[in-house]
Amino acid sequence: MQIAGIPIEDTFAEAFDRKATRVIITAADARWAHDAAAAFTGFGTSVIACGIETAVDRELAPGETPDGRPGVAILAFAVSGKELEKQIPRRAGQCVLTCPTTAMFAGIDGPKRVPLGKTLRYFGDGYQISKLIDGVRYWRIPVMDGEFLCQEDTARVDAVGGGNFILLGTSSVAVSIACRAAAAAISEVADVITPFPGGVTRSGSKVGSKYAALFASTNEAFCPTLRQVVPTQLTADEDAACELVIDGLSEASLREAMRVGIRAACHTGADLGLRRITAGNYGGSLGRHHFHLHELLA
Amino acid sequence: MQIAGIPIEDTFAEAFDRKATRVIITAADARWAHDAAAAFTGFGTSVIACGIETAVDRELAPGETPDGRPGVAILAFAVSGKELEKQIPRRAGQCVLTCPTTAMFAGIDGPKRVPLGKTLRYFGDGYQISKLIDGVRYWRIPVMDGEFLCQEDTARVDAVGGGNFILLGTSSVAVSIACRAAAAAISEVADVITPFPGGVTRSGSKVGSKYAALFASTNEAFCPTLRQVVPTQLTADEDAACELVIDGLSEASLREAMRVGIRAACHTGADLGLRRITAGNYGGSLGRHHFHLHELLA
Amino acid sequence: MQIAGIPIEDTFAEAFDRKATRVIITAADARWAHDAAAAFTGFGTSVIACGIETAVDRELAPGETPDGRPGVAILAFAVSGKELEKQIPRRAGQCVLTCPTTAMFAGIDGPKRVPLGKTLRYFGDGYQISKLIDGVRYWRIPVMDGEFLCQEDTARVDAVGGGNFILLGTSSVAVSIACRAAAAAISEVADVITPFPGGVTRSGSKVGSKYAALFASTNEAFCPTLRQVVPTQLTADEDAACELVIDGLSEASLREAMRVGIRAACHTGADLGLRRITAGNYGGSLGRHHFHLHELLA
Amino acid sequence: MQIAGIPIEDTFAEAFDRKATRVIITAADARWAHDAAAAFTGFGTSVIACGIETAVDRELAPGETPDGRPGVAILAFAVSGKELEKQIPRRAGQCVLTCPTTAMFAGIDGPKRVPLGKTLRYFGDGYQISKLIDGVRYWRIPVMDGEFLCQEDTARVDAVGGGNFILLGTSSVAVSIACRAAAAAISEVADVITPFPGGVTRSGSKVGSKYAALFASTNEAFCPTLRQVVPTQLTADEDAACELVIDGLSEASLREAMRVGIRAACHTGADLGLRRITAGNYGGSLGRHHFHLHELLA
Repeated sequence: MQIAGIPIEDTFAEAFDRKATRVIITAADARWAHDAAAAFTGFGTSVIACGIETAVDRELAPGETPDGRPGVAILAFAVSGKELEKQIPRRAGQCVLTCPTTAMFAGIDGPKRVPLGKTLRYFGDGYQISKLIDGVRYWRIPVMDGEFLCQEDTARVDAVGGGNFILLGTSSVAVSIACRAAAAAISEVADVITPFPGGVTRSGSKVGSKYAALFASTNEAFCPTLRQVVPTQLTADEDAACELVIDGLSEASLREAMRVGIRAACHTGADLGLRRITAGNYGGSLGRHHFHLHELLA
Repeated sequence: MQIAGIPIEDTFAEAFDRKATRVIITAADARWAHDAAAAFTGFGTSVIACGIETAVDRELAPGETPDGRPGVAILAFAVSGKELEKQIPRRAGQCVLTCPTTAMFAGIDGPKRVPLGKTLRYFGDGYQISKLIDGVRYWRIPVMDGEFLCQEDTARVDAVGGGNFILLGTSSVAVSIACRAAAAAISEVADVITPFPGGVTRSGSKVGSKYAALFASTNEAFCPTLRQVVPTQLTADEDAACELVIDGLSEASLREAMRVGIRAACHTGADLGLRRITAGNYGGSLGRHHFHLHELLA
Repeated sequence: MQIAGIPIEDTFAEAFDRKATRVIITAADARWAHDAAAAFTGFGTSVIACGIETAVDRELAPGETPDGRPGVAILAFAVSGKELEKQIPRRAGQCVLTCPTTAMFAGIDGPKRVPLGKTLRYFGDGYQISKLIDGVRYWRIPVMDGEFLCQEDTARVDAVGGGNFILLGTSSVAVSIACRAAAAAISEVADVITPFPGGVTRSGSKVGSKYAALFASTNEAFCPTLRQVVPTQLTADEDAACELVIDGLSEASLREAMRVGIRAACHTGADLGLRRITAGNYGGSLGRHHFHLHELLA
Repeated sequence: MQIAGIPIEDTFAEAFDRKATRVIITAADARWAHDAAAAFTGFGTSVIACGIETAVDRELAPGETPDGRPGVAILAFAVSGKELEKQIPRRAGQCVLTCPTTAMFAGIDGPKRVPLGKTLRYFGDGYQISKLIDGVRYWRIPVMDGEFLCQEDTARVDAVGGGNFILLGTSSVAVSIACRAAAAAISEVADVITPFPGGVTRSGSKVGSKYAALFASTNEAFCPTLRQVVPTQLTADEDAACELVIDGLSEASLREAMRVGIRAACHTGADLGLRRITAGNYGGSLGRHHFHLHELLA
């Protein structure tokens, strides 16, 4: 199989069960909402050391938000509901409660809940006020610019993390730019994020390391500078690789994101030295979600 | 004292000893450097729950960086050198090592050091290579797009955190926009950052809370909605307040930032309903750096 | 009538017949498309001295464009079809034909046509090639980066220009920021543009001048500095006014834009010193499209 | 001669005498200044059909502007002083006079002058006021948000237009991205602009055409799709070319821009399929400024 002349390997991406949530931040203008969202989603590239993988899902026009103001919808993914419960209120407390004019709302429905105002209200030191509207609880927490209006909680749902595909080509600049095109295309797909910087990572890893303390280390089989030293997965003219890692609320959204992203990567990369698309997996035994490239691109 | 008709209270900001560092991220183009920096500095608004306060110091043209590529200089502040040692490599590992085409360098000199490559090199699983150039050690860590070049360490220096001033006015929109003008003006000052979202916070806090578990809670004396309920610091027409919090490498840089920021706030706010500038302190006993507004504006 | 406490005057905006077109620019990535669009739409604030009023309608995802690449849709309005025929190819020749990787397509259907490739093809010096696909003619014009693919022409349709409303308030900063919120809200409405810088103008004019050569000059009745000197439309606490001018493909789209824009202006401006919303007209005799504020806000 | 492995041809760019000016726009915040500048400089890619070539020189911090507000410096180049006199006031009238909160100042000194307020004042319909400060005349023109403060005139100076270099490589995407890196690097150089969209053009032209009405047409010797049809300047693996065109206030600034831009292009392009750098000239007889690539890169 080829797209724009780029061979697509007959392999699959192996992805994992995740717990996810969506929150909505609104503000007096789009810029404050964006500022709060940028702070909230920063340092959220990988569940390993950031706790959650989180990024902006999309910007919301005033007509799309609970309070009719400009807003931003954020997605966050963790390995457990417990980790979400820890990370979301902490980030909300540091990055949204603090930000002028913002309010915060659930962005998804479901029976299992992640606390928002339920935890943050204590900052009000007893002066916070609870309000029940149509069966939904909100908190009004006194702050210096008035009140921080914050819904009691948001939902958490079962989700999928670690969908991926890998671009291989003749140089890091070439591959990284094809990846950027893929990330841009994926940003238009609903219910998914690409949590790494600019949506892309170049530090593909294998499980384990010669250093006992490390759970993961560089995947030398994909490192171009080690081609002469270790068994390699790279052909002679593949001098660089980068990976798109995608988290999504459903297998369907992930599949769509991979489809759209791979196509964009091929069309942009065809003229830049992109040589091959593959995907990362661990033989299929670690994650129960398998995305076969040929299937989703058919 | 007045600026553009806005009264400046005769009080002082109380700031604290901090340990700080500066790191430089470069990349194949300015956008990858910016993407890595945005990830690195996110969720870095307050030492309380983020570990460090960190933000972009400034963008660097190719001629200003160690490897002649576009870059970004980042400042980070913590309560101890130990916390810097924990946070900087962790954030660098998640947000820079991962980002296509980036390299990482010390951005400041000094005898005390914060590890960069010294810690990150282990990701190379033994395939990393050390290089000594002019007495400075660098690591070349194999990754999928080639090598992550990373200096052994950067310096940490004594610094000052929590310089601040507070804007009071007739509405949250008015005050928040005057604050934005202040943050924009401060961004031109070297060696300082304003770590809160958009550079501003509205969640001023007092020490302690009625809830035993909380070290800090809302400063009700500055909450406009509580004016009828508690002893207040607000006058009748002050319906909102927001605060600029500034961290700097020196008292001098903080003083300059406060001077520039207050002036911008007054000039923009004069026509918007800004009513007063004050500053936050704890009587002077907690932090040993005192910035008297009338003095620094004289 | 009031919105968020701001009085809406019982008056109407008087708008004019215009000829309009929409063109689509696509490119290898969104940034080149944006660069071409920024050049094309610049110096396009007013039909008086720019020939056309033109601005970006909206960004297009790859799935929305004729060639599956990222794109931008542009609207342009003129007083006559002839002026469109003069301006569109000239701007396309200077700003799209010249821009790396771009292509250009009709963005609207209709029997009356505005030339694109029909005129631009001559740049190919005889080496251009015509292609008919499904009855639509395209030109492939040789350029240094390959070929500029350009549709033969686009349509022009009857449209409406000069829909407007005016914000009055206590300061230029206050009014200009409320206007900015209005322009942001209007940018979400389809089929309309606000062609002035940032979507706003402060140079409201009257017909005629004491200088014979000028067709229009400052509308002194709305100038706050002339309040003591001339008969004024301003009340004692109205120290500034700014105007949103809106062009649209239909009365319905203009009405929606005015409705959305006025509401956003009031909600943002209420706390900033906004005092009144009115609209500009010439007694109703010059333009045949009248937009009554109370009617469209009902 | 090679840079990063890319051969630099031993040829020269031929540039032309131009008249140039610099103006400064300030505003209540950086965004209004930017909005006015974007409108002013749009549709300003080429003297042929836009009248002037104009673009932002650089952003100005409040401390760098005549009135202590944020600002933008703009450069404009024309074939004659007369054309500057026509274009500058017209663009200022449509794009700066109209824009909320802006003021306008000379950005360069010299005995020969280009009118600003001198022409624009008439919009005031007799209500404008002149003010002489330190021998410099300013106009205060009443507008709806207060007054448009505008300096009487700015200077025009002798300058150089059409400095250039051409990138040739394996694909339009590759070449266009290398060009983008060059334009980014040049934007750091003082006193120069790259007026084409995104700083780059792909429509290199020769003098004359088979169509009598056209003064210029595609330079078929550089068109990759015509390689089999006409005598070509392209080698077998050069499938695309793009050009940086640079205008500058002096030969020295142009030389610096070309040096910096070519180096950036080579370093970014080396891994992308960039094959050669050359420059455009007409044998040396049309323009009296010759920039020899080997000389300026030595």
